[in-house]
Amino acid sequence: MERVFHEDTLLTGTGADCVARALFDVARDLPLICPHGHTDPAWFATDAPFADPAALLVTPDHYITRMFASQRMRLEDFGVERADGRGSAPDPRDIWRRFAEHYYLFRGTPTRLWLDITFDRLFGLTRPLSASTADESFDLISERLVSPEFRPRALFVRFNIEVLATTDGALDPLSHHRALADGSWSGRIVPTYRPDQITDPDHEDFAAGLKGLAEITGEDTGTWAGYLEAHRIRRAFFRELGATATDHGVPDAATADLAPGDAAALYDRVRRDRAEPGDAALFRAQMLTEMARMSAEDGMVMQIHPGALRNHNRKVFAAYGRDRGFDIPTRAEFTRSLAPLLNAVGDAPGLKIVLFTLDESVYARELAPLAGAWPCLTLGPAWWFHDSVEGMRRFREQTTETAGIYNTAGFNDDTRAFPSVPARHEVARRVDCAYLAGLVADHRLREDEAFEMIAELTTGLARRTYRL
Amino acid sequence: MERVFHEDTLLTGTGADCVARALFDVARDLPLICPHGHTDPAWFATDAPFADPAALLVTPDHYITRMFASQRMRLEDFGVERADGRGSAPDPRDIWRRFAEHYYLFRGTPTRLWLDITFDRLFGLTRPLSASTADESFDLISERLVSPEFRPRALFVRFNIEVLATTDGALDPLSHHRALADGSWSGRIVPTYRPDQITDPDHEDFAAGLKGLAEITGEDTGTWAGYLEAHRIRRAFFRELGATATDHGVPDAATADLAPGDAAALYDRVRRDRAEPGDAALFRAQMLTEMARMSAEDGMVMQIHPGALRNHNRKVFAAYGRDRGFDIPTRAEFTRSLAPLLNAVGDAPGLKIVLFTLDESVYARELAPLAGAWPCLTLGPAWWFHDSVEGMRRFREQTTETAGIYNTAGFNDDTRAFPSVPARHEVARRVDCAYLAGLVADHRLREDEAFEMIAELTTGLARRTYRL
Amino acid sequence: MERVFHEDTLLTGTGADCVARALFDVARDLPLICPHGHTDPAWFATDAPFADPAALLVTPDHYITRMFASQRMRLEDFGVERADGRGSAPDPRDIWRRFAEHYYLFRGTPTRLWLDITFDRLFGLTRPLSASTADESFDLISERLVSPEFRPRALFVRFNIEVLATTDGALDPLSHHRALADGSWSGRIVPTYRPDQITDPDHEDFAAGLKGLAEITGEDTGTWAGYLEAHRIRRAFFRELGATATDHGVPDAATADLAPGDAAALYDRVRRDRAEPGDAALFRAQMLTEMARMSAEDGMVMQIHPGALRNHNRKVFAAYGRDRGFDIPTRAEFTRSLAPLLNAVGDAPGLKIVLFTLDESVYARELAPLAGAWPCLTLGPAWWFHDSVEGMRRFREQTTETAGIYNTAGFNDDTRAFPSVPARHEVARRVDCAYLAGLVADHRLREDEAFEMIAELTTGLARRTYRL
Repeated sequence: MERVFHEDTLLTGTGADCVARALFDVARDLPLICPHGHTDPAWFATDAPFADPAALLVTPDHYITRMFASQRMRLEDFGVERADGRGSAPDPRDIWRRFAEHYYLFRGTPTRLWLDITFDRLFGLTRPLSASTADESFDLISERLVSPEFRPRALFVRFNIEVLATTDGALDPLSHHRALADGSWSGRIVPTYRPDQITDPDHEDFAAGLKGLAEITGEDTGTWAGYLEAHRIRRAFFRELGATATDHGVPDAATADLAPGDAAALYDRVRRDRAEPGDAALFRAQMLTEMARMSAEDGMVMQIHPGALRNHNRKVFAAYGRDRGFDIPTRAEFTRSLAPLLNAVGDAPGLKIVLFTLDESVYARELAPLAGAWPCLTLGPAWWFHDSVEGMRRFREQTTETAGIYNTAGFNDDTRAFPSVPARHEVARRVDCAYLAGLVADHRLREDEAFEMIAELTTGLARRTYRL
Repeated sequence: MERVFHEDTLLTGTGADCVARALFDVARDLPLICPHGHTDPAWFATDAPFADPAALLVTPDHYITRMFASQRMRLEDFGVERADGRGSAPDPRDIWRRFAEHYYLFRGTPTRLWLDITFDRLFGLTRPLSASTADESFDLISERLVSPEFRPRALFVRFNIEVLATTDGALDPLSHHRALADGSWSGRIVPTYRPDQITDPDHEDFAAGLKGLAEITGEDTGTWAGYLEAHRIRRAFFRELGATATDHGVPDAATADLAPGDAAALYDRVRRDRAEPGDAALFRAQMLTEMARMSAEDGMVMQIHPGALRNHNRKVFAAYGRDRGFDIPTRAEFTRSLAPLLNAVGDAPGLKIVLFTLDESVYARELAPLAGAWPCLTLGPAWWFHDSVEGMRRFREQTTETAGIYNTAGFNDDTRAFPSVPARHEVARRVDCAYLAGLVADHRLREDEAFEMIAELTTGLARRTYRL
Repeated sequence: MERVFHEDTLLTGTGADCVARALFDVARDLPLICPHGHTDPAWFATDAPFADPAALLVTPDHYITRMFASQRMRLEDFGVERADGRGSAPDPRDIWRRFAEHYYLFRGTPTRLWLDITFDRLFGLTRPLSASTADESFDLISERLVSPEFRPRALFVRFNIEVLATTDGALDPLSHHRALADGSWSGRIVPTYRPDQITDPDHEDFAAGLKGLAEITGEDTGTWAGYLEAHRIRRAFFRELGATATDHGVPDAATADLAPGDAAALYDRVRRDRAEPGDAALFRAQMLTEMARMSAEDGMVMQIHPGALRNHNRKVFAAYGRDRGFDIPTRAEFTRSLAPLLNAVGDAPGLKIVLFTLDESVYARELAPLAGAWPCLTLGPAWWFHDSVEGMRRFREQTTETAGIYNTAGFNDDTRAFPSVPARHEVARRVDCAYLAGLVADHRLREDEAFEMIAELTTGLARRTYRL
C-alpha cells in the first residue's frame, strides 16, 4: 500500500460485491458460537427425534404465529395450546398447509430468510414454499426428521456449534445439563443464570420463588443477607455446570444503589407483600446493581435485556399464556438509568455487562457513547425485532463510529427454533460481510483489516465477551 | 428456480435498476386509490375551472409557504390572506415570479419532485422553473387552466382516479357530496367522518359543535347517551354518501376505557365547561375508544393521526390563522397509550384501525410490533413531513421486517393540492419499486413476488384496508 | 435539458461516482470556514512549535483517550494528567507506541479517517499506523513539527483557513485575541462568547463568575438589570475583537419567558444561593431567552448545544477532571422547549439561532420542521458523536426533505485538535459530495444545481449563517 488514504474515499463505493463474497468465503466455515438462546437442553440430553415439521418449525415460533394472529387467524389453528385445555390439537399436516398457504405474509421479513435458508441447507427443498408445495415439503421434512442424521446431537455437530448456552430459571435443577455433563457426548452446552422470578416482585411466582430459593439453597431468604447469599450459591451451581453468564429481563434499565440498610428494608417490604408504590421497580433496580456486584466477584458476564411490555393483549394472555408475540417494546433510557450501577461498580476489573435494547434510538445517542467509554460495558447485538437485515445494518451504522466493533459482543441467535440456528448466524455473517465490504469500497477500511474484523465479528468477540 | 436460496444473498445487490424499471412499468398504469386527502368536493360538484397558477399551486400549499416564511419572506406576499383582512391580494403573476425566483429553496425536497412531475406530466413545461422561466411557465399554465381538459372532472378522469376520499367535519352537511351523488357524473368521491371539533374539549368551537350536533341530529347532546347516539347518526349519514372511514387528529395517542358512569360524568364536566385538569385529555382518550367501538359496530375504518403541536408560532396564528406550516411534531408513544382501547375492543372481528405517526422512532419500536400482532391494527403510510423519498424508504425499512407489507395500508396522498395527486402517487410508487427491486437484487425476494407486491402496495392494500 | 423530469427518477441511481468525484474536485480547493471550534488562540498568538506527536495528536483528544479507557487502559498512560498531580508523565514515544499498537480499535470510526488523512496529507506517512510503524511515524512527525512549516501560523495558511472562531468564557480577557489584533499577522481568528459559567447556577464557579463579572464590567451584578447590562458589555467587548456569535451549552433546550419581576426575583434567589427546586433549570431557561433578546439587538448569532450529561463516571471526573470522554447524551426535546423563547423573540428581524442536537431522533421530527418554518432558526451540522460519515449522511437524509439545505449552517469542525481541522472539513465535503451525487443519480437534482449546492454547503452557508 503506497498511501494510507485513497483519493476516492467516501465518493464511489465500487467493488463492494467482490469484497463481500471474499469475506463470506471465510466467515461461512467458522464455527458457531451461541452464547445466548432459548433451546431446550432436554433435546440434547435425550437426543429424541423431533416430532414433525409443524411442531418443529411453526407452533413454537412466536415470530410466525403472531403474524398469523395479526391477520385474524387463530393461534390454536397453528397448534398453540389453550391455557384452559379446550380444543383439540390440529393435525400437523393441516397446520403445515395453513402455514404454507400464508407463507407470503413473511415476504421481506427475517423469518422468511431464516426459513428459506433452513429449507435449502438443511432439508434440501428446491421449490419455494406455497400452498402448491405444502404437501411435498411436509413429506420431505417429515422423512428427514426420522433419520438419525436429524437427531438433535447430530444436528449440533453438523451445524458446527462450538458452544451453545441455554437460558434457565434460577431455581432450575439443571438436570439435563447435569446429564449432559456426564461425559458421554462431547457437545458443549452450558446454562445461563436467569433469576427474574426471584428479583422481580411483580412476577406472579415471586413469593413461591423465594420459598423455593430457601429450599434449594438452605439459606434463610427471610433476610436480605440470606437472600443475597442464596443467589451466590445458585450462581456457583450454574458455574459448576459451565455457565459463564447471567441474564436479566427487565421492563427498563433503571438501576439503584441503596445503602445496605435501605436495601434490606426494601427487601423486607417486597418479601412480606407490603410493597409501597414504586417499591417493585426500585427493588428490580437495586437487584441489577447487586447482580453486577456479584458478577464483579465471580466473573459471570451480566446480560441486561430491558424494554418489553409483556402480554399486551390480555385476552391472548388469558387464552394462551406468555410468549405469544404480544410483547411490545417501549421507549428506552440508559444514560441516567445506569449511572447508579456504573458509579457503584462500573470500574471493577472483572465486571462485564452486555447491554441490549428494543429501542434503536438509543444506539447512537446513549449505548455507543456509554460502551465507548465505560470499561465494563459491551453492546449486545441487534435484538429480537431488530435481529433482521435492516436492523443489523442500522446497529452497525449507528454504533461502530462511536464504540468501534471491539466494544460489541458478536452475534446471539437467541432462538427457541434449533433448526434455524445456522440460518440466523448465516444471515448475520452476510450482513456483516456486506457492511465491512461497504467500508472497504468506501476506502474507510483496508481489505486486510476487514478480514481480521469478520473473524472477530463471527467468533472472536463472542468468545471473549462471554468468556467461552 | 432451482434453489429456494441464492448464494449471493445480501452480498451484492446487483441488478436492482432493471428490476425497478420493470416493476414501475406495471405500477405506472394502475389506477389511483385516494382513501385519505383534503381536496375540496366543491371542485368536482361545480367543475369550475381553477383560477390561476399561483392560486392553484402556491398559495394554498403550506409546504411551500412555510419554506418561504423560514427564509424571512411574508406569507401575504404569496397570497395568504390575513385574518384581519388588511392588505390587498398580490397579483398572481407577482406571486408566481417570487415563487419561481426562490424555487431553488426546495432542492432536495419532495415538494420540488411533486412540482417537477406536475410541470412535466400535466403542463408540459420543458425548462426548469426559475426567475428566467417564470413568465413563460405562468403563461403556459394559465392558458391550460382555462381549457376544458383542465377542469376538475376532466383531470379526475385523466389522473385515472378510481376513488377519492375527502375529509369532512362531523357537522358538515356534505352538500357537495350529495350533489355528486345525483348520478350525473361517474367519478367516485366519498366523504370521511372527522369529528375532532366535537370530541376535543380544547377545540375553540367545541361548545358550538355540541349545539350544532344536537340541531343536526335531533338528539339531546346534554346527555352522554344522546351525544353518543348523535355520533352514530352522523356516521350513518356519512356512510350513506359513501364514507367508509373516520379520521381523528389528536395531540397524542392516549386512549382510555372508563366505566360508563365515569365517562358520562366526564362528559358532563367538559360539556358544562367545568373540566378539571386532565379532563380534556381524558375525554379525547375516551372518545378514541368510543369511536373504535362504533367502528367495530358499523364497519367504518378508523384512522388515528396523532402527534402535531398546532400553531407553534402564535403571531402567525393570530395574523393568518390555522394550517400555515407552524404545526410541529412531538415525541410519540403508542404501546402504553393504545392498550386501553385495544384491550377493550381490539379483538372485535369488524374493527380496523389505521395508525399514523410523525415520530419515526416508533416505526420499528412500537408500530410494527403492534401491527404485526393485533388483528385490528394496520400501519398507515409515512405521513406529512415523512411523505418523502427518504421518509418512505425509512418507513419500509423499519416496518416491513416485523409487520410485513400485508399489515400496511398502501399510499395516502393526503393533499389539498389536486394537481399534485398523481405526482405524489408516482413518487410513492417509484420508491416502492426501488425498495422491492433492492430486496430482489439482495435475493431476499423473488422477482415474481415483487410483482405481486407492487400491485398490493399500489392498489390492493388501499382498497382492502379502506373497504373501497 | 429537454424535460424537467427524468423517467429513471428514483429507480436506478447509476452514475453517482462520476458526479461525486466532479463535485469534490470543486469542493477540495475552497477555503475552510471554521465558525465553531475549540483551538487555543495562544497557538497563533505565540506561534510556538507544537511539542511532540503524542502531545499534539493523542493526549488532548478525548475521542481517542475514551476509546482506550473503554478497553480498560489507564488515561494517565496516554499522558492525561491526574487532578491530584500524582504519577509522572509517560515518555511521548511510549504514549505513541501504545497508541499505534491499539490503533486498530478505531477501525470504522471517524477518528481513524481524520488521522489517516492527517498522516497522509500533512505528515506524508506512507505506511498504515501500527505497532510495527510506531517508531518511524513518531520520528517522522517529530522531525516535521520542529520545522518552520509546521508552526501554527504556517499551518493556518497552508490549511487555507479563511476565518477561525475559538470558544471563550464570558470572563476571558481575550489577551491572545487582542495580541492577534495588532495587525502583525493577517490570519483571521475571532472569539465566541460562551457565558455558561455565569448563566448556569449549577456551575461550580457560578458565584465566582458573578463576582468576576462585576469586576470586569464595573456593573452591579447584585441586581438583575446590572447583571443583564454586564452581559451586554462583555458581548460588545467580544464583538470588538471580531466575535460574531455566542455559544450556550445546556443540559436541555428548555426556555422560559418570565415577566421581568419574576425573572429578577429568580435571579435574586440563585445569586444568593437560595435557589428552590427547579430554580437552576428555570434560570438557564430564562437566560436562553435573554441571550436571544440580546442577539436580536446586537446581531450576534446564537448557538445552542443541548443534551450532554456531563461527567457520567464520577471516579474519572475525580481523578482527571472534565472533558475526559464521559459526557453521555440524553434524549432531547425542542418543540415544546423552544416555544417560550420563539414566541417571545423568534420573529425579530435580526435574530439568528443555530440549533445542535445529540439526539438524532429529533432531526426529522422536530428540528427540520422548526427550521423549515421559523425564520430565526438554522440547523447546525451533525455534532460530536454524530460528526461522522454515517452521522452526516443521516443528518442530510433526515433534514433536507423538510428544511432544505438553505436552513442549515454548513460545517463546524468543533475540534481541539488543530492538525485535524482540514481532515474534518475534507470528510464533511466528501460526504456532502456523495450525498448530492446520489440525488443527481436519482434524478432528484440536476447536476448544475449540485455544483451550486456544494459551494453553499462548503463555504456559503457558513459565511452567511455566522455573518463572517
